[in-house]
Amino acid sequence: MNTQTDQSVITPEHVAIVGGGVIGCGWAVRSLAAGARVTVFDTDVATAERRLKQAIDIAWPSMEKRGLAATADNTAWRVTDDLADALAGADLVQENVPERTALKQHVLAEIDALVPKDVLIGSSTSGIKPSELAEQATRAPGRIVVAHPFNPVYLLPLVEIVGNTATDEATIEQARAHYRGLGMKPLVVRAEIEGHIADRLMEALWREALHLVNDGVATTEEIDAAVVYGAGLRWSLMGTFLTFHMAGGEQGMRHMLEQFGPALKLPWTKLEAPELTDTLIERVVAGCEHQAAGRTVAQLEDRRDAFLTDLLNLVERYWPESEGLAGRI
Amino acid sequence: MNTQTDQSVITPEHVAIVGGGVIGCGWAVRSLAAGARVTVFDTDVATAERRLKQAIDIAWPSMEKRGLAATADNTAWRVTDDLADALAGADLVQENVPERTALKQHVLAEIDALVPKDVLIGSSTSGIKPSELAEQATRAPGRIVVAHPFNPVYLLPLVEIVGNTATDEATIEQARAHYRGLGMKPLVVRAEIEGHIADRLMEALWREALHLVNDGVATTEEIDAAVVYGAGLRWSLMGTFLTFHMAGGEQGMRHMLEQFGPALKLPWTKLEAPELTDTLIERVVAGCEHQAAGRTVAQLEDRRDAFLTDLLNLVERYWPESEGLAGRI
Repeated sequence: MNTQTDQSVITPEHVAIVGGGVIGCGWAVRSLAAGARVTVFDTDVATAERRLKQAIDIAWPSMEKRGLAATADNTAWRVTDDLADALAGADLVQENVPERTALKQHVLAEIDALVPKDVLIGSSTSGIKPSELAEQATRAPGRIVVAHPFNPVYLLPLVEIVGNTATDEATIEQARAHYRGLGMKPLVVRAEIEGHIADRLMEALWREALHLVNDGVATTEEIDAAVVYGAGLRWSLMGTFLTFHMAGGEQGMRHMLEQFGPALKLPWTKLEAPELTDTLIERVVAGCEHQAAGRTVAQLEDRRDAFLTDLLNLVERYWPESEGLAGRI
Repeated sequence: MNTQTDQSVITPEHVAIVGGGVIGCGWAVRSLAAGARVTVFDTDVATAERRLKQAIDIAWPSMEKRGLAATADNTAWRVTDDLADALAGADLVQENVPERTALKQHVLAEIDALVPKDVLIGSSTSGIKPSELAEQATRAPGRIVVAHPFNPVYLLPLVEIVGNTATDEATIEQARAHYRGLGMKPLVVRAEIEGHIADRLMEALWREALHLVNDGVATTEEIDAAVVYGAGLRWSLMGTFLTFHMAGGEQGMRHMLEQFGPALKLPWTKLEAPELTDTLIERVVAGCEHQAAGRTVAQLEDRRDAFLTDLLNLVERYWPESEGLAGRI
C-alpha cells in the first residue's frame, strides 16, 4: 500500500483547456476561481465563448461562497481555434474532447508535440485507459494521465488520476500537486481499468436501476427517491464500506460479512457477485479497520449523526419538493 | 401511474417495537421524538434496556436539533419479555427480529393473533417479500406490510412500504399516514421483489465494489473516497436518473442515452445490463421529464450548485480527515 503522505500543492498559473463543452467550461471556472488564467481551444469559438460566459455567470456566486483565490479574475480567459496559441505558456493542459478513443489519441498526440516535456497533460476521459490514450504520442507520453473529474467540475472535489505504463512516480506527484492547487481531491488509481473506480460504481447502480425500470418494478422518480432519502444522504459522508462497517455493530465489517454475505448469492438480480473467499473477507475487513483509524463504531455514529442532522436541515431547503413524487411520499 | 396525492398524517400514540436491536432501538428513538410512547418486546430485557438507553443518549441531541414533538418524552418507554404486554394498546407495531424468514413468519403470526385487526404491523425486513412474511398469519394478514427503514432509523427519512397480496389500498394509506406521522418519507413499492428498491441499488454498488477489491484494483478506502468526494455528494440531492438527465445537457436524458447507452455494453464488469430497447428508452426519458416538472436543465443546475456549495461547506466540518487516505488525497 502506498504510504505517501506528501501534501504539496502547486496552483497552475495558466491552464489550457482543450475542448470547451460542459466539462471543459467546468475546468475553466474552477481554474479561474483558483487564480489561474485560462485559454480554451475549441473549433467553434463563438459557441465556446457563449458557453463559458454562461458557465461563469451560473457558477461564480457559488465560487465566491466557497472562497476565491486572491488572484481570481473571472475575465482572465479567452477562446481560440488555434491549438498552439491555446497551449503556449500553459503549465497544465486539460483535454476534454468527445469520448471517442481515436479522436482523443489524435488530439493528445498533437498536444504532446506542442508543449514542453515537463508540462502535465490531463485527460477528462470517463472510461478510456491512459495507455490507450497515449498510444500515438511520441515525445513524452508519460506525462499524459487520466484526470477524470465529476460534474459540476467547479464544485465536486474528486479527480481520479491514472498514469499510463510510461508514467513515473514524479509525474503522479506533479498531478496530485496541480489538482490540489485547483482545490481538488486527487485519488490516484493504481490500476488501469476501463471506467476507473467511480464510474464502475455508478454504472453498477445505473444497470440495476435500468433493470428495475425495465422490469416495471419502479419509475425513475421512485428509484431516485430511494437513493436520495436513504443511502444518498449517507454517501455524502461515508462510502459503502464504512457504512457497512458501522452496520456490523461493535464487531464491524467482519460481523456484517457473516450476517449479510450470504445475501450476495440470492437470486435477486442479474448482477453477479464475486465469491466471498477468505482472502476477500480479510481484505475488506482490514481495509475498513484501517479507515476507521482506531475509532469505535460509537464514535463513528456520533460523527455521522451530527452530520446527518445538519444535512437534513440543509436538504430541506433544497428538497425536490415539486418533483413528480410531490404529495405521494 | 399512481396519482394519489393524499398527504394525511397520523402520529401513532403508542408504538410497539418487537425486537430491541439496532433497528428496533432506532424506531424507538424516532417514535419517542415524534411524541409517541413506546413498548419494546425483547427476550433479553436487560440488554435491550441498556441498548435503548444508549441509543437515546446518542441520538437525543440530534432529535432536539431536528425538532421534537410537543409531547416528546424520552423516558416514555419500557422493555418487556411478554409479547402480549408489549403489544397491548399499541396503534402501530414494528417488527425487527433477525432477518430469518421462518423466525419472522412465526413472530408476525403471533403478533397478528394478538392485536386488533385494524392495527398496522410493519416489518423492517430488508429483503423478504411481504407475502412470504404473512404466510402463517391467519387473522388479518393484509395489515402485515414491509416497512423497511435505513440506518440510522431516527434520522434517515426513507421507509419502503410494500403490501402483500391481501393488502388493500386503505391499509397502504394507513401505512403512509402512520410513517409520515413519525416524520418519514414513505415510498410505496408497487411490486414485491426481494430487496425492494433501495437495497437492490445498494447491493449492485456493493457487488461492483467487492469485485474491485477482489481484483486488487483498489482498497476499500479508495473506493469509499471515490463515492464520497464524487457522486455521493450529488446523491443526497438527486438520484441517478435526474443526475444523468442533467448530464445530457439541454436535451436531457434522451441525449444522455444516445451518448452513453453504448457504454452499457462495454465489457467493463461482470454485472450484466438490460437491453436498451425503445420501450426502456421511452420509459426512462418520460420518467425524467416528469421528475424535472417543467424545469430546464439550467434551473436544475442552479439549485444543484447552491445546494452543493452549502453542502461542501458543511462536509468540510465533518470530513473523514483522519481516515487512512489522510495526506494522500
